[in-house]
Amino acid sequence: MASFTSFANLRAACLDLPAGDLAAAEAVARREAELTKPPHSLGRLEDSVAWLARWQGRSPPRLDRIEVLVFAGNHGVTTQGVSAYPAEVTAQMVANFAAGGAAINQLARTAGASLRVIPLSLENPTADFTAEPAMDEAAFVAAVAAGYDAVAPETDLVCLGEMGIGNTTAAAAVAAALFGGGGARWAGRGTGIDDQGLIRKRVVIDAALARHAAALEDPLQVAAALGGRELAAILGAVLAAREQRIPVLLDGFVCTAAAAPLKLIHASALDHTMAGHVSAEAGHRMLLEELGLKPLLDLNMRLGEGSGAAVAVLVARAALACHTGMATFAEAGVTDKS
Amino acid sequence: MASFTSFANLRAACLDLPAGDLAAAEAVARREAELTKPPHSLGRLEDSVAWLARWQGRSPPRLDRIEVLVFAGNHGVTTQGVSAYPAEVTAQMVANFAAGGAAINQLARTAGASLRVIPLSLENPTADFTAEPAMDEAAFVAAVAAGYDAVAPETDLVCLGEMGIGNTTAAAAVAAALFGGGGARWAGRGTGIDDQGLIRKRVVIDAALARHAAALEDPLQVAAALGGRELAAILGAVLAAREQRIPVLLDGFVCTAAAAPLKLIHASALDHTMAGHVSAEAGHRMLLEELGLKPLLDLNMRLGEGSGAAVAVLVARAALACHTGMATFAEAGVTDKS
Repeated sequence: MASFTSFANLRAACLDLPAGDLAAAEAVARREAELTKPPHSLGRLEDSVAWLARWQGRSPPRLDRIEVLVFAGNHGVTTQGVSAYPAEVTAQMVANFAAGGAAINQLARTAGASLRVIPLSLENPTADFTAEPAMDEAAFVAAVAAGYDAVAPETDLVCLGEMGIGNTTAAAAVAAALFGGGGARWAGRGTGIDDQGLIRKRVVIDAALARHAAALEDPLQVAAALGGRELAAILGAVLAAREQRIPVLLDGFVCTAAAAPLKLIHASALDHTMAGHVSAEAGHRMLLEELGLKPLLDLNMRLGEGSGAAVAVLVARAALACHTGMATFAEAGVTDKS
Repeated sequence: MASFTSFANLRAACLDLPAGDLAAAEAVARREAELTKPPHSLGRLEDSVAWLARWQGRSPPRLDRIEVLVFAGNHGVTTQGVSAYPAEVTAQMVANFAAGGAAINQLARTAGASLRVIPLSLENPTADFTAEPAMDEAAFVAAVAAGYDAVAPETDLVCLGEMGIGNTTAAAAVAAALFGGGGARWAGRGTGIDDQGLIRKRVVIDAALARHAAALEDPLQVAAALGGRELAAILGAVLAAREQRIPVLLDGFVCTAAAAPLKLIHASALDHTMAGHVSAEAGHRMLLEELGLKPLLDLNMRLGEGSGAAVAVLVARAALACHTGMATFAEAGVTDKS
């Protein structure tokens, strides 16, 4: 269970992170070099297995228990007309997840992952952050703790996703606060807003940055003032996974923005995460570059829900199947490189 | 069974290709627009389902029967020192495929695809194409026919791959002959040749282009003079799949170079193919651009064997699962875009 109750002791937790297991990653690399293929010819598949080993702390790594966690939240800023869909769609989509009708249901099943959806006070949207902080300290820390506590022990890989009408506006505001550039740099079309809406979205982000100028130096205060409950929960889940030695696949723009404050608190805080994909949402590629994350997939997806992370699981499974199932040069009687 | 017996009637077969089923592709797009997600937010997953429907001629498409065909051949040009591995590795790897120890065995199993390996006269390498044509007309057409006949009816998707020590040299020579630029533009490190070997490879390619200058205007003569049996078989398999309305996932540089002559004979001849990935082999990205093919994956792989195509199957499966399994806005009671 989460023990933090304030910005101060949450920050302390973010500074006290375990390192990865380099010996496990090296053991994976040694075996890869013996398998019947030219050295490193499986590219990012090989890298993925080494990454899993490093953060699980074992070689070979396992993918027996994969969980997709989707956090959902509602946003006061939707009253500013920043989304193509009405706010009630968040709860409707949570019902759709429960009924098995959403994309992430199909993708999690295809990936052999279990899916858990965690709605966060949907009936009580965050405040409109153009007027006041989206969350006060207590509400923010509670949402972080909800995400932290959602990560189950003994999981081999966690995929993080989100649902929340209005949350690309929150994510863009967080990214702008952390990395500069304002609404013009970070606002995108989200679920598909029109040109006028995109202009409104930029204005809203810039207004929020001005309103919360005093909070912009502290990444956690940024996340509280400009983020949302589902973003805070993702931050908590990334932290919990690190402490429990569970590798994390991040999803798209919102998920990445949610995790970003951790990187500014502790430079290696996201080393146990991999970007499952780069989304078509305008700011995602830039945000990944700011964070030094190289996405596994680039499929022009922009759905959220953990959908890109779930597709990336398929690549990780393929990678592990090669690593554990292939013969070595010696076993197969194949002549190694001359 | 293949009915062509010469360059002339093979060319005629390449010019007589069925069109895709646009109505099936449109039916897929109509359903995608009704599913509970913003329009086109699954990006290339949606495109993949429409592509499968178009070339299977049905909506929804199926992925019940997927086959990976790996063609293997040996190359006389290996005597020029163009590969990091000795030529006997081709047959050794074919034995490894049979024993289940190669990457493609693990990847085909992960993708739910059957794997068939077709060795093509391994004991009889093609001629060294710096001295004479790799194959004469009869040998070339026979190899094309072997690939053509390997495509089983009622297959839902074919993945094409190859194994052949020396074949990135052949592929680079074919690409240079078709698109210009010589060895400097197209030679890459293949299985991992060193700097001196790479220089030799460029020289060999340029020598071959000079030697066969008279054949360079005819794409089929290029494939015979500079290619290899496994490349010819891939060309035949691509042709057979088109005639049987079977979509094709191409693999890496060699596989793409093998199919390329078809495009120069008939501009839409590769429309039923998708590039499963872009490989790390130097020329592949350029070759895909020349052909107007946009790769699904970019994972720094460079193994061949159909490995990149097999990983791409996973994405196609995820796409089809969304298409057939998701609820519509109406079914789920989710409010559509405002």
